[in-house]
Amino acid sequence: MNKVVVKNVTFGEGAPKICVPMVGKTVAALKEEAEMLKTIDLDVVEWRVDFFEDVKDLVKVKAALDEIRAILPETPILFTFRSAKEGGELAVSDEFYFELNETLAGTGKIDLVDVELFNEEADVLRLIETAHKNNVKVVMSNHDFDKTPAKEEIVSRLTRMEALGADLPKIAVMPKSAGDVLTLLDATNTVSEKANQPIITMSMAGTGVISRLAGEVFGSAMTFGAAKKASAPGQIDVNELRHVLDLLHKQF
Amino acid sequence: MNKVVVKNVTFGEGAPKICVPMVGKTVAALKEEAEMLKTIDLDVVEWRVDFFEDVKDLVKVKAALDEIRAILPETPILFTFRSAKEGGELAVSDEFYFELNETLAGTGKIDLVDVELFNEEADVLRLIETAHKNNVKVVMSNHDFDKTPAKEEIVSRLTRMEALGADLPKIAVMPKSAGDVLTLLDATNTVSEKANQPIITMSMAGTGVISRLAGEVFGSAMTFGAAKKASAPGQIDVNELRHVLDLLHKQF
Repeated sequence: MNKVVVKNVTFGEGAPKICVPMVGKTVAALKEEAEMLKTIDLDVVEWRVDFFEDVKDLVKVKAALDEIRAILPETPILFTFRSAKEGGELAVSDEFYFELNETLAGTGKIDLVDVELFNEEADVLRLIETAHKNNVKVVMSNHDFDKTPAKEEIVSRLTRMEALGADLPKIAVMPKSAGDVLTLLDATNTVSEKANQPIITMSMAGTGVISRLAGEVFGSAMTFGAAKKASAPGQIDVNELRHVLDLLHKQF
Repeated sequence: MNKVVVKNVTFGEGAPKICVPMVGKTVAALKEEAEMLKTIDLDVVEWRVDFFEDVKDLVKVKAALDEIRAILPETPILFTFRSAKEGGELAVSDEFYFELNETLAGTGKIDLVDVELFNEEADVLRLIETAHKNNVKVVMSNHDFDKTPAKEEIVSRLTRMEALGADLPKIAVMPKSAGDVLTLLDATNTVSEKANQPIITMSMAGTGVISRLAGEVFGSAMTFGAAKKASAPGQIDVNELRHVLDLLHKQF
């Protein structure tokens, strides 16, 4: 499996990397969040820009990014606009979704950009090209907040993401039973045994929390922890998360 | 699913119960261990009597039990002679194995007795009868230190244990891959969804540690933690274990 290196973080090696979301609505809130995150043992911050009240103003988005970067100069920043259809805060046109992501990828000031698989392939490929031209890694993602697809479907989505050029394929699904959590873990294990790129998977909500801890066993390269506020169901406190990941890492 | 209540411990409800093994060779060592265990947040102690140097002297075994019980009056004691063929310290005849377990079960001073599935059925049934007559619960166990059997085989062994009258069927298997850990978790989930009795399962060694934490998700009612010394590969520190089990319990 290829390693994916972003600043001082290597995905696909050792314990899963910890990503903490930033969900501030204003620049002031984002700056406060960034200051707090400086004190936390994390690997990556995800700016969930769909929470940002001025997200539709690209000038303000870029200015806010500069403020975050000034406070967190060495921390990999994953830029994510989570679409409403996949659990995000705000519905926007596909056109704006890609304009936003292309523009920010084009600044080269983000380290990773999230693009959702369920979009026009041509748009996705063009964004990947822009990102890679600007040394920005691509997290390609898919979220099912209602159910857990069959193992084969999870495997095929992750495989397709890699085929399209994703550096880090990612899938998050909702379990309705413990069996669903096993399905996600099984798919993770199957894909990670043969994939070229490290993958990121999680089974959400309380039932799925074990999947956020077990990445090193079954093959998920990153896991999301909450600092101030969780951005998805099942995210546990980032300090607790690090403690358990270290505990499990010691067993290998 | 039936609950199994032993003193103040209810198996099959809430977080998995924590069992800590006692592996002292002498009465003095066992007394020292018992004193230390008084200070630890555990639910059950397992006296691994195959470690006891005088195990072949039933008078001394009963005397040692009285010493342990005097120090731990309220703690459920699981009496286990682990056979050499299933990972224990000492090879003994089947005849002695059943004489020892019948005698100790007959005292009514132990709370649970471990009997291994792979024995003559008549002997197993007789020990269960003696145990139940003396209000002693039966943990029926099976250990594979070499491999992880197929899911169907794990399911059938656990199901057979219940059919024979076990209060708590238990199986411990060795993973050679993450896939093996999934097999154990899958079998656990399948059995616990339909069984009448709570079950105890674990995938051993470092790869299997996640199975020692995930009992509340997939259906294992007890997990083994180490205080002074682990009695099987993959047992983590009992305090760390309690911390993670509580963390996961909070997610439900």
